Amino acid sequence: MNNFEKLDRIFVPQLDEILGVKLPVLNDGFIRVVDYMGSDESIVQAARVSYGKGTKKMSEDRGLIRYLIRHQHTTPFEMCEIKLHLRVPMDTWRQWIRHRTANVNEYSTRYSIAIDASQKTKSNEWRIQAKDNKQGSEGFFPIEIGDKLTDRESDLQNFAREIYQERLSLGVAREQARKDLPLSTYTEAYWKVDLHNLLHFLKLRMENHAQFEIRSYANVIGNEIVKKWCPITWEAFNDYVLNSLTFSYQENEILKKIYSGKKQEAIDIADSFGWLKIVDTRFTKNIERMEFEEKLDKLGIDKPWE
Amino acid sequence: MNNFEKLDRIFVPQLDEILGVKLPVLNDGFIRVVDYMGSDESIVQAARVSYGKGTKKMSEDRGLIRYLIRHQHTTPFEMCEIKLHLRVPMDTWRQWIRHRTANVNEYSTRYSIAIDASQKTKSNEWRIQAKDNKQGSEGFFPIEIGDKLTDRESDLQNFAREIYQERLSLGVAREQARKDLPLSTYTEAYWKVDLHNLLHFLKLRMENHAQFEIRSYANVIGNEIVKKWCPITWEAFNDYVLNSLTFSYQENEILKKIYSGKKQEAIDIADSFGWLKIVDTRFTKNIERMEFEEKLDKLGIDKPWE
Amino acid sequence: MNNFEKLDRIFVPQLDEILGVKLPVLNDGFIRVVDYMGSDESIVQAARVSYGKGTKKMSEDRGLIRYLIRHQHTTPFEMCEIKLHLRVPMDTWRQWIRHRTANVNEYSTRYSIAIDASQKTKSNEWRIQAKDNKQGSEGFFPIEIGDKLTDRESDLQNFAREIYQERLSLGVAREQARKDLPLSTYTEAYWKVDLHNLLHFLKLRMENHAQFEIRSYANVIGNEIVKKWCPITWEAFNDYVLNSLTFSYQENEILKKIYSGKKQEAIDIADSFGWLKIVDTRFTKNIERMEFEEKLDKLGIDKPWE
Amino acid sequence: MNNFEKLDRIFVPQLDEILGVKLPVLNDGFIRVVDYMGSDESIVQAARVSYGKGTKKMSEDRGLIRYLIRHQHTTPFEMCEIKLHLRVPMDTWRQWIRHRTANVNEYSTRYSIAIDASQKTKSNEWRIQAKDNKQGSEGFFPIEIGDKLTDRESDLQNFAREIYQERLSLGVAREQARKDLPLSTYTEAYWKVDLHNLLHFLKLRMENHAQFEIRSYANVIGNEIVKKWCPITWEAFNDYVLNSLTFSYQENEILKKIYSGKKQEAIDIADSFGWLKIVDTRFTKNIERMEFEEKLDKLGIDKPWE
Repeated sequence: MNNFEKLDRIFVPQLDEILGVKLPVLNDGFIRVVDYMGSDESIVQAARVSYGKGTKKMSEDRGLIRYLIRHQHTTPFEMCEIKLHLRVPMDTWRQWIRHRTANVNEYSTRYSIAIDASQKTKSNEWRIQAKDNKQGSEGFFPIEIGDKLTDRESDLQNFAREIYQERLSLGVAREQARKDLPLSTYTEAYWKVDLHNLLHFLKLRMENHAQFEIRSYANVIGNEIVKKWCPITWEAFNDYVLNSLTFSYQENEILKKIYSGKKQEAIDIADSFGWLKIVDTRFTKNIERMEFEEKLDKLGIDKPWE
Repeated sequence: MNNFEKLDRIFVPQLDEILGVKLPVLNDGFIRVVDYMGSDESIVQAARVSYGKGTKKMSEDRGLIRYLIRHQHTTPFEMCEIKLHLRVPMDTWRQWIRHRTANVNEYSTRYSIAIDASQKTKSNEWRIQAKDNKQGSEGFFPIEIGDKLTDRESDLQNFAREIYQERLSLGVAREQARKDLPLSTYTEAYWKVDLHNLLHFLKLRMENHAQFEIRSYANVIGNEIVKKWCPITWEAFNDYVLNSLTFSYQENEILKKIYSGKKQEAIDIADSFGWLKIVDTRFTKNIERMEFEEKLDKLGIDKPWE
Repeated sequence: MNNFEKLDRIFVPQLDEILGVKLPVLNDGFIRVVDYMGSDESIVQAARVSYGKGTKKMSEDRGLIRYLIRHQHTTPFEMCEIKLHLRVPMDTWRQWIRHRTANVNEYSTRYSIAIDASQKTKSNEWRIQAKDNKQGSEGFFPIEIGDKLTDRESDLQNFAREIYQERLSLGVAREQARKDLPLSTYTEAYWKVDLHNLLHFLKLRMENHAQFEIRSYANVIGNEIVKKWCPITWEAFNDYVLNSLTFSYQENEILKKIYSGKKQEAIDIADSFGWLKIVDTRFTKNIERMEFEEKLDKLGIDKPWE
Repeated sequence: MNNFEKLDRIFVPQLDEILGVKLPVLNDGFIRVVDYMGSDESIVQAARVSYGKGTKKMSEDRGLIRYLIRHQHTTPFEMCEIKLHLRVPMDTWRQWIRHRTANVNEYSTRYSIAIDASQKTKSNEWRIQAKDNKQGSEGFFPIEIGDKLTDRESDLQNFAREIYQERLSLGVAREQARKDLPLSTYTEAYWKVDLHNLLHFLKLRMENHAQFEIRSYANVIGNEIVKKWCPITWEAFNDYVLNSLTFSYQENEILKKIYSGKKQEAIDIADSFGWLKIVDTRFTKNIERMEFEEKLDKLGIDKPWE
């Protein structure tokens, strides 16, 4: 009967296998997949609604998904949804929650007693402030300094917990007792997001410059969850987003000269952009030039000005 | 093993039964449930994450869901998601799409040939402009007038389709050929939304003053889909939202006087709000008073001023 | 010339007067209005675009705004926008940021050194855990206990800052050094939101059960900012939202009986809802009944069952 | 006094000059700037809140804005807001409204009589369906065919208006009378959006493949409004977004070979991606290869396989 085209729910056996399983992150954090909706197949299904009968003969699913990612036709990816159970330090959660296009239920320390666990740093995990990048780190402290830092961290975390317990024992309201908990305290949350917004999260948080902690979570979500859930999308996302390079108008102008062998003209153009100011026989720091140089390195292209 | 608390996906057998089935609306529209995530149970599950262990002993699921609806603790309802396949007239879709918190893939008349179906009005379905409400209707035209209106509607829809076909035959770009299609033309879309936002949609669109067409769709979604999907939530939504009454500060002041039998004081207060202006021995139209009178009627309370 | 209907920007002199001025909150927090767009007048202007020429004769502005608030026609209120500069404890910010429909730029402790200020609690400000409400407080501790709590708070905050400084001195990356800062540490942010979403924030956060800290901020925003910015809207919001009462289907059924003097029938209905279970000659705790009793109190109505 | 750092509102004289002025689009559409909040300066101001005191010495404003655009640090751009009054054909509005992150008040044909204007196509404006791109057009019809199409368009629009008037005269409810209006009918709306989301809109709608009609509006917004409002941002957006080129992982691999002069290896790699299948001595259609070739053209680079 025409009116009765019964459907079955789409499921992804590889993801079902890890449903509910704790994927560990950091010293005491985790990610668990609680539920999901859709798959690579439903992205294609949604795209074909947009394109209607016209696409019947269109290239196969993989080609379509790659096309959608490449051209930022993002709505079909919104048709997939995933719900994760997370355990993260509050400091990391502060960054995470800035991604607004997700649904969230967080463990309430107003209602319940704060989780008795905090992010602890091993002696070999203390990171040195980066010189060039105010918000980055480079390298680790030697173990002797690390030992000291870890001891002090432990003292502080213990003292904070002691005071929290003291307040609770005296009968201070939970909503107030929690006020001095350290940011390293773990929290838990259900976090539900569609695939489009999840990929955007991963793009920003799997990136080199993302902070180590949230990057650790993002890597697990990408490499252990999305890769199983929507493998074709994951491959396309790697090819077109994670491993892509974007060149600005200025960079394109220089690339043209480099290709046609006009080295001096390439230098002149870069100079006209103010990239090649020299002080004491060295180029002054110029972020646009330095970022371009990094991209040239990735393509194995020599800098014209060296 | 501690690390392995395998989960199964939540499913709702009553909803699975109608998955993919066309629920007809209007002359040629429909709604199909394509997929869903969650259930009444997952709302409770999400709420308990927020409340932590503290709620282990808390009242049973129904009580919790009712509490959440009553106090507009909306985030647990966002943990449920549903994906519908819709066929609606573009005129109705124009209203529908104004609900922004949903994911949408619409059939593209830029890419494909427009669906060859339009909303047709039967002779007994032509509605008379309401006098009091500029955006409403009241009653139907007699069948003789209806016959004429339906004939003319048919003429217009046929002519519009003829011209559309003419353009396509000549090779006019589809993106331009469609420009004069009537708003009654059907479109199709995948529409994915979380339960919280769906309930908000239903609150506005199942309401008496919502236009008949979109109300027809909302009624099917509410009474034939949500009721099956999350029956406890549906009951609470009916009790606390659809069938509730809200009284303003002013109305509360009058209700107090009515209860304590001080009829004249009730009248004086209403008068002080400017509700009881009289012209030619009749109250002038005052929307705040009239809306209050409607609520009094629902509670079987006499108007003090009559 | 028809094509040239030059406009001036809308401004609100009362709000301009406090632009940039610090409105203090808590021991070291503040709110400053940085910029805004629109006014009561622009809400009316936007509504009249929706209603077109048809509303020329419609009732005056105040009536229109009240109508919009009453019927939750929220889009015209989205046409007003305000940008605030906030200084709040991170613990409060954790609640604040859950309101997703706002634009945010927060002070980065990854990039810069954390603000050297934390929320301090005076001896007479320590709150006792509420018995009935797990997430509330009731009353304050006597000053002797408060003294001790305040001393210990001070010890912890000093120790935490000491360790933070120690890490920075050693050269620990700022993004890591901050990990154990107490939640009481102040953060700053630019927070930009439209009036509709701001009113929703105020509805939830000016409410009795909102935590004292965020309520303090909400009160300043409502009573010192919105009231100046959009006085007509503020009045309507008070009348129809803050000071309104909503009755459920069940409550309406009982109200009908009360108002028609049928006390026993009112009791019977309440009993049929399971509200009047008795153990040891007292009603058992039933939240739905208790919330209804609170509303009856506000209307000066006697409980039928007492 | 420290507590009183009075601010003035930020204004942009160049934009104030065109406030309220109708910028014409299509035969009878327009865009008017109604109000705005912020400027290039407020983007910098917001970014510096994020970066705190640390940026005092940071490079000047232009460098900062360019950095923010380049690295997709989008939140500071959300601090600027603009409100436009639009008049667009409903067909164009259907595409426009799909951008969900904006505030909208549209003219209501339920409440008022539909605007008596429709998008008319001149004889030389009829576009031919593109062969390669199902959703595109290429070239125009000769004037003789255009004349005929324009006549027929006129017939249809007149007939549709006649029937609409007929219904209104008979007293059909406005909400129903409008049901067969052609999509070419103009509608009006207030559309308010932040600069980040506006730039995203412009990126998609100023693009070559965007439909002519919406592209016409996007061009006016970009080149006549944003350019005046935030000139530094506009320049950066052109350099880093509109005029940038992005290369996928696969394309980077080929570029490496090209730049190191290894033509055959470049061909082999492309072949391994399946880009160089040959049927009847010609490459088969392969979209990924063709899109890469377009980019090579822009950089003046010869295709290795030609």
